[in-house]
Amino acid sequence: MHAVVDLTCQLVARASVTPDDGGCQALIADRLQTCGFQIEHLRFGEVDNLWAWHGSTGPTLAFLGHTDVVPAGDLSAWHSDPFRPEIRDGFLYGRGSADMKGSVAAMVVALERFVAAHPGHPGRVGLLLTSDEEGPTNLDGIRQVAARFRREQTRLDWCVVGEPSSREQLGDLIRVGRRGSLSGRLQINGVQGHVAYPQLAVNPVHRFAPVMAALVAEVWDQGNADFPPTSFQISNIAAGTGAGNVIPGQLRVDFNFRFSTASTAESLQRRVEALLQAHELDWSLDWNLSGAPFLAPPGGRLRETVVAVCRDLAGKEVEQSTGGGTSDGRFIAPLGTEVIELGPVNATIHKADECVRLSDLQRLPDLYQAICQRLLLD
Amino acid sequence: MHAVVDLTCQLVARASVTPDDGGCQALIADRLQTCGFQIEHLRFGEVDNLWAWHGSTGPTLAFLGHTDVVPAGDLSAWHSDPFRPEIRDGFLYGRGSADMKGSVAAMVVALERFVAAHPGHPGRVGLLLTSDEEGPTNLDGIRQVAARFRREQTRLDWCVVGEPSSREQLGDLIRVGRRGSLSGRLQINGVQGHVAYPQLAVNPVHRFAPVMAALVAEVWDQGNADFPPTSFQISNIAAGTGAGNVIPGQLRVDFNFRFSTASTAESLQRRVEALLQAHELDWSLDWNLSGAPFLAPPGGRLRETVVAVCRDLAGKEVEQSTGGGTSDGRFIAPLGTEVIELGPVNATIHKADECVRLSDLQRLPDLYQAICQRLLLD
Repeated sequence: MHAVVDLTCQLVARASVTPDDGGCQALIADRLQTCGFQIEHLRFGEVDNLWAWHGSTGPTLAFLGHTDVVPAGDLSAWHSDPFRPEIRDGFLYGRGSADMKGSVAAMVVALERFVAAHPGHPGRVGLLLTSDEEGPTNLDGIRQVAARFRREQTRLDWCVVGEPSSREQLGDLIRVGRRGSLSGRLQINGVQGHVAYPQLAVNPVHRFAPVMAALVAEVWDQGNADFPPTSFQISNIAAGTGAGNVIPGQLRVDFNFRFSTASTAESLQRRVEALLQAHELDWSLDWNLSGAPFLAPPGGRLRETVVAVCRDLAGKEVEQSTGGGTSDGRFIAPLGTEVIELGPVNATIHKADECVRLSDLQRLPDLYQAICQRLLLD
Repeated sequence: MHAVVDLTCQLVARASVTPDDGGCQALIADRLQTCGFQIEHLRFGEVDNLWAWHGSTGPTLAFLGHTDVVPAGDLSAWHSDPFRPEIRDGFLYGRGSADMKGSVAAMVVALERFVAAHPGHPGRVGLLLTSDEEGPTNLDGIRQVAARFRREQTRLDWCVVGEPSSREQLGDLIRVGRRGSLSGRLQINGVQGHVAYPQLAVNPVHRFAPVMAALVAEVWDQGNADFPPTSFQISNIAAGTGAGNVIPGQLRVDFNFRFSTASTAESLQRRVEALLQAHELDWSLDWNLSGAPFLAPPGGRLRETVVAVCRDLAGKEVEQSTGGGTSDGRFIAPLGTEVIELGPVNATIHKADECVRLSDLQRLPDLYQAICQRLLLD
């Protein structure tokens, strides 16, 4: 069997729902150590993180991945055991096969081949893994590792994230950045009362109504060449006792910004709070910044390299997108690192019968290895 | 003991939380039958209703009351058993003493005295009681009785409701009407999705935001001489899965109008629906009309009579209000009946240590009897 398929199967068979690594990182560390990589296990809380590198001076290219997976979900919706990899009709099935154990296996195989072919290569190549990417908080994964790298002044020049970026064919789309994600949990305080006596109550829903209309209508920015305009979405809203004759005393509203580099978290916070102030509401608001936006600049060395590698593979232009959710790239980019995401087709991720096309999986190490060569050897 | 105090104590001792009558109506029916009243027990579903009348031709004056009470609530907050009437410091304590077993007892005593003094009185006097006034639906109480009266063409010219109308002193405030109550349960349909992909979702909260602002800002009418302007209140609003990264698929909004005779239920419904239509929402809306507004016209015979009786008692002008919630008067007024509400001070109703001032209770039969005399004899 092809080396990358074999390793992907070994990883999928190690059930590793967040934050459990399931032994994936130990397996990978053993292999890379055998090829001369230095190994550092970084455990934070319940989370395993691995940093393996080869080479010493010069620029550093790091591959970034995660060994944790989302839960299998309804088992009856699967046609095979999600944690027993199975090959059918040219696809490898199993939880994590596409997101992102296939990418991780391809990174390992690419690095093994690269250092075998160029044992004295200039610069440094590395693999950074976490088992806390799919969870709700991501507190003890790459966030912590990045903080440590910052303290220790570990410099990463380029970072390739293995998130499944491709739309229909391997390499047809790469992520050249991600929007920021800023959440707010708002409470509007009123005075509860009987609907027949509104003069004795303050209805927080009514007080908030013009603010909500303004928030929804607001154009936060126009986006820019790389990002769509910032979007604002209310995810939850709740007020009321359930009774039809009671004016509620409080209103809670959760909202989220996905914001471009045309705005900053601070500017968005300021504008929301100014709207609340202007309407003289009694309010409290907790902000949570999940990640700032980041962008590999047009013309950047990594971005140009990955685009060229994908173009060579597909024979056509690659789509350079900043769409979708967030990724661990948001923790690495603030280190001054140029970050690009390239991985297999994402059509089945997080679903039943998650799978990766075998031919894509087999070509992925070639792509990653080509990136190493062009960045460090050319 | 004064007859009305004695009867109030007997009624309070008959625990009768909605829809239970607790034997109150049987006790009253016995007494009135003894004085020559005709008795009709009207049981609908679980609810006891009583119609007792005396006289045959000419105009009809009906007293309207309820024998059911709200639950006692937290017993530890009471200084005596809510269903064991107790006299302390000039007050009679017990659940229902003010709302409205005191009024019911006063009506019975007034009617007994009136027919004893004027056995061949012109017109007809009656007492209409239900045990379904305090419940949430009022389906089987006066609503049903009124429907039957309508079918049988039982004409009521005047109706005095015993709801505790007084603010600080007996007879300082009467209700000359009530606002209507119209409720709506609105659902706005959107398309659920991920907050990072708003282009694939339709956020019903966002779609509703401008409509909500318009509803809240709308001036529905200016009210009129007898009514304050119609008020609109949102009582409940809910959307969202709880997750911060999901655009909700549906929004539910409950609202209520308390409306004056300057509007109609139909006009309010039409205006709300026009707003929803204008914003091209996907919506459904269930309406519930609890009661239309009613008003005893200025100069009406009953209204003038009750005002005069109260003025004579207090030596000052009585406040003629249409404030507060709804009452069973809303079912009687559409029969073409002039409806006025007069009862004791309402400061303690529905609370722990509900009570009625003994001196008020003792004077209330005089008021009711004076109304009978002025309407039927003068």
